[in-house]
Amino acid sequence: MEERQVEVAILGCGSAGLNTLSKVRPAGKNVVVIDGGELGTTCARVGCMPSKAAIQVAEDFHRREVYSRFGLEGGESLSLDTKEAMEYVRDLRDNFVDRVLSNSSDNFPEGLLIDEYAKFIEPNLLETTSGQRIRAERIVIATGSRPIIPDAWNEFRDDIITTDEFFELETLPSSAVVIGLGVIGLEIGQSMSRMGVDVTGIDMANTIGGLTDPEVNEQAVTIMGKGFPIWLGAAAELSRAEDGRIKVTAGDNSVVVDKVFASLGRTPNVESLDLAAAGVELNDRGIPVYNPNTMQVGDSPIYLAGDIDGDRPLLHEAGDEGKIAGYNAATGSNTAFKRKTPLNIVFSDPNIIQVGACFAELDPETTAVGSMMIAPVGRALIMANNRGLIRVYADKASGKMLGAEMITVRGEHLAHILAWSIQQELTVGDLLQMPFYHPVMEEALQAALYDLYSKVEKKNDTPITELRPL
Amino acid sequence: MEERQVEVAILGCGSAGLNTLSKVRPAGKNVVVIDGGELGTTCARVGCMPSKAAIQVAEDFHRREVYSRFGLEGGESLSLDTKEAMEYVRDLRDNFVDRVLSNSSDNFPEGLLIDEYAKFIEPNLLETTSGQRIRAERIVIATGSRPIIPDAWNEFRDDIITTDEFFELETLPSSAVVIGLGVIGLEIGQSMSRMGVDVTGIDMANTIGGLTDPEVNEQAVTIMGKGFPIWLGAAAELSRAEDGRIKVTAGDNSVVVDKVFASLGRTPNVESLDLAAAGVELNDRGIPVYNPNTMQVGDSPIYLAGDIDGDRPLLHEAGDEGKIAGYNAATGSNTAFKRKTPLNIVFSDPNIIQVGACFAELDPETTAVGSMMIAPVGRALIMANNRGLIRVYADKASGKMLGAEMITVRGEHLAHILAWSIQQELTVGDLLQMPFYHPVMEEALQAALYDLYSKVEKKNDTPITELRPL
Repeated sequence: MEERQVEVAILGCGSAGLNTLSKVRPAGKNVVVIDGGELGTTCARVGCMPSKAAIQVAEDFHRREVYSRFGLEGGESLSLDTKEAMEYVRDLRDNFVDRVLSNSSDNFPEGLLIDEYAKFIEPNLLETTSGQRIRAERIVIATGSRPIIPDAWNEFRDDIITTDEFFELETLPSSAVVIGLGVIGLEIGQSMSRMGVDVTGIDMANTIGGLTDPEVNEQAVTIMGKGFPIWLGAAAELSRAEDGRIKVTAGDNSVVVDKVFASLGRTPNVESLDLAAAGVELNDRGIPVYNPNTMQVGDSPIYLAGDIDGDRPLLHEAGDEGKIAGYNAATGSNTAFKRKTPLNIVFSDPNIIQVGACFAELDPETTAVGSMMIAPVGRALIMANNRGLIRVYADKASGKMLGAEMITVRGEHLAHILAWSIQQELTVGDLLQMPFYHPVMEEALQAALYDLYSKVEKKNDTPITELRPL
Repeated sequence: MEERQVEVAILGCGSAGLNTLSKVRPAGKNVVVIDGGELGTTCARVGCMPSKAAIQVAEDFHRREVYSRFGLEGGESLSLDTKEAMEYVRDLRDNFVDRVLSNSSDNFPEGLLIDEYAKFIEPNLLETTSGQRIRAERIVIATGSRPIIPDAWNEFRDDIITTDEFFELETLPSSAVVIGLGVIGLEIGQSMSRMGVDVTGIDMANTIGGLTDPEVNEQAVTIMGKGFPIWLGAAAELSRAEDGRIKVTAGDNSVVVDKVFASLGRTPNVESLDLAAAGVELNDRGIPVYNPNTMQVGDSPIYLAGDIDGDRPLLHEAGDEGKIAGYNAATGSNTAFKRKTPLNIVFSDPNIIQVGACFAELDPETTAVGSMMIAPVGRALIMANNRGLIRVYADKASGKMLGAEMITVRGEHLAHILAWSIQQELTVGDLLQMPFYHPVMEEALQAALYDLYSKVEKKNDTPITELRPL
């Protein structure tokens, strides 16, 4: 059988695959990209971008609830045409997808992209759906992930919505349960609720939004729970209600709804790859065992990038992983790179944030915790959005910043400034020497940092904490 | 005449005076605070806090203009009861003022505060309005500033509003000119315009919002000018119109309005201090010549803190100056402290920002400039607020970040992350190695930084720009 010979084959043409390609092509390598699906990245198609558009619409509509505080009249007569709203979300989505494509696959030279799927025949040999064989010196797997739907729910599939379907909805259901209250469940659940859907949120865990700090989680459950009921600690079971709709039961609670929004996480697209033929070690989830600093699978010629690896399923991390995999696949140097400070943002209102080390992984003996409630924060009061809590963590002895969890308006920005600080290994005392303007939400962080500073041993070596001698 | 003897006297009990006191009292010094006016800081009373409340109300009302894009119906029937809005602003203001007072002067021990004004008799001797004499080893002047109104406008005083009067207005005028388009003029001008006042903005300069970068200024004038007409480059003159209102003329333009909002800047409160008796050198504005790192006036026992010095009239800077003056007045050590990276935020919508070195003070020969228009930025599109421009400056040879000017939504947060980065002397290449989430406004900054990186000589010493080898 004839074999096409390439130096690098990239399986998947989403964010990770495109970033891989960005390092392989400039190196002058003979490369092929294999992807039989829709191009244009999970992020732009069904992820970060359209969800943020829906969130913005929902937030603008929801904002009417504070109007009467300051003499803004007529809010009660506002109404949202959800059909138009969903069209708007799709229009924005299409714009973002087009932009990704016009920057990438639209300009691919002939032969670079094979519009099929591929599986392994041998560690260096792939076969596409049509039977074309490709022998590659190195292979980068960037086939991404898809929403999880438990097999037990197959009979209800027509009434189950995931992010793959949500943005295609002509109009919103009148009622829905959201099962799984991680990032996606909270973002879409809150948006649907604010757009008029009768939403119930369910999670079998007792935590939401990826939080591990019990105090922040308690705040988050309370705050999000003011928007729609949240049932925690019991798994959801589906059954058919007498009226033909879906009955969802979780522990002692049950509700009958039109639709189920399943946000139980995403599973890597590995099955069709026939990884057994790749001769690589798989972990218990069926994912090749790889090094997150080189993206290499064992000492094989295979690399992972993006959601396929089940770790850090975020656009900017997929970008880094693609670049690392691409550089190493192109050069064979297998250079190890330092990964960025972890950063997770739930774009709910208020934002839910986890930066650096999460609370659960820190040693309570050696960790100091500073906290600040959002209630009295001036700018939050001015924004009429002053519910929340910031908790910041540092090493007790050295004062070095370790991480933070929080729920607060404008949390996305505090997350960045903290992540940058942690990546630079700054101490809490260092941060107190930075400028904090007034009145800004950064002052809430400042207050949490002062509290933290009082609990660490390492103090600034200056007579005024906030200023260094010249 | 009997003289009260103290170690430190503080003239003025606003933000700067209170911060001064925070360093003098714990040092166990015998101290007196002299202030015959309203306590509770310019910031909370007539500055940052109430202005942000007015801005928030105006922004919420203005937001109706984008509703129709996404099916939010009924926006045209929203109306703002400006009387109620102003009451709301005052309520918030009173809350903030009370909080400042309850944290400070409400708990002053007997005799700490003298509720009078004071003037110098000799360098170490003060006399209060009632004739009480106070001999102080060291004196901190923190008497603040007040809005400028030209003498030529005295006959129109009843129709001129400054920040001292604005927040006391029962209701808003139907028309106003705003004279002086710095921070305050733009913030209040835009707010009034959005709350329904027929506003015209005038500045004798050709720049607004403190911008010095001509490209950012051009954007700012265009964007702000979509809200209300802006006349630049000619000084405003007032005269009485036939109908009894005020005619404002600037160059070839003129308009008849109900009120004039004067935002020509603030002048230090120095006159009543009788500084001639203090035996200190004054600059051409009548302000004692002082060292901004020690806050000491020459080698005298006198220190300045806050708006009195005419430099950096910002709450957080007044805090730093108060702490420096307080520490040095308490100890007499006259330690020099490093001042924070300059940071100026106009809380207009979008925000107008100046961080670090401003464009005008940079040498075009040795400075690289990166820029990013806000128009195509994903998150800005999602927020339906995508007009603006970011310009970032670095040293061409070393890549060290120097400053930025910009107009953009969420600019206040980009300002902080940039100011912190500049203060740490990071290079543009360092910044590109920090995490940028998606989709956030920090990505607009990232795009500007990539542009800047392409123009500096110093590149990151790593095979992947964004990642360091482990």
